[in-house]
Amino acid sequence: MSKSRIRGFSHERDLARKLWDHGLAVIRAPASGSKTKHLLYPDIVIIYKGKTAAIEVKTMKKTRTLYIEAYQVKKLLEFADRAGGEAYVAVKVVGTGEWIFMPISKLEKTTNGNYKLKKEILQEGLKLEAFVSIMKGVRKLTEFKS
Amino acid sequence: MSKSRIRGFSHERDLARKLWDHGLAVIRAPASGSKTKHLLYPDIVIIYKGKTAAIEVKTMKKTRTLYIEAYQVKKLLEFADRAGGEAYVAVKVVGTGEWIFMPISKLEKTTNGNYKLKKEILQEGLKLEAFVSIMKGVRKLTEFKS
Repeated sequence: MSKSRIRGFSHERDLARKLWDHGLAVIRAPASGSKTKHLLYPDIVIIYKGKTAAIEVKTMKKTRTLYIEAYQVKKLLEFADRAGGEAYVAVKVVGTGEWIFMPISKLEKTTNGNYKLKKEILQEGLKLEAFVSIMKGVRKLTEFKS
Repeated sequence: MSKSRIRGFSHERDLARKLWDHGLAVIRAPASGSKTKHLLYPDIVIIYKGKTAAIEVKTMKKTRTLYIEAYQVKKLLEFADRAGGEAYVAVKVVGTGEWIFMPISKLEKTTNGNYKLKKEILQEGLKLEAFVSIMKGVRKLTEFKS
């Protein structure tokens, strides 16, 4: 396994642990991720009292436009649809240590059929506490929408 | 990793795949299970349109009374409580290749504080198709209760 892959898992563990400590049910997918798998796992699945979020985890050194491959978006949407939940991208900006959550609906299609999340939009993403509030039903996603 | 551990994972994958093929959202826990982990993962989590099942996977060569350690039951219940779902034990009887699902409420406490599922009760467990029907809301668990 590559060094960046291992580092990716340690960020996933960090996120899973933070969300668990906020009282949510959290499960990470098995490490052996491959594009050709039969089952489509998100990186992390969060459930709270019947509400599900399927999450793709990304890291970046500092805030920039994020590119996501089409198969990863498809995977998230398929899982979220079956679960009856929402799909998010969680981005860790390693420099600040902060996690930002973006609903998948904020992604834009690129000319080659993949997806991107523009830097300006990413900067308006939900912080971890806001995301937890939404999962717990304390606040609504629409409160955060511009 | 021990041979029986590896075999256990292959049975988990078999179950996850079968349930996915029935249209449910399914996620397996990471392989690195240890009793001292901070997060409490069930072996498999299943979600369908807001309904969650946290599942502990067991295998046996032929139907017999099953013993389950207290920490595994605690783990399942904690996850199911946060998720707002149900907890089950899924048992594969390797000889027949069949999966049996039992709600955690069917477990009995042993004198040493662990749990058991009596052979006679296990034989009355839900088959995979019945379990899927319950998850999909087509049938109710009470229909199957003796």
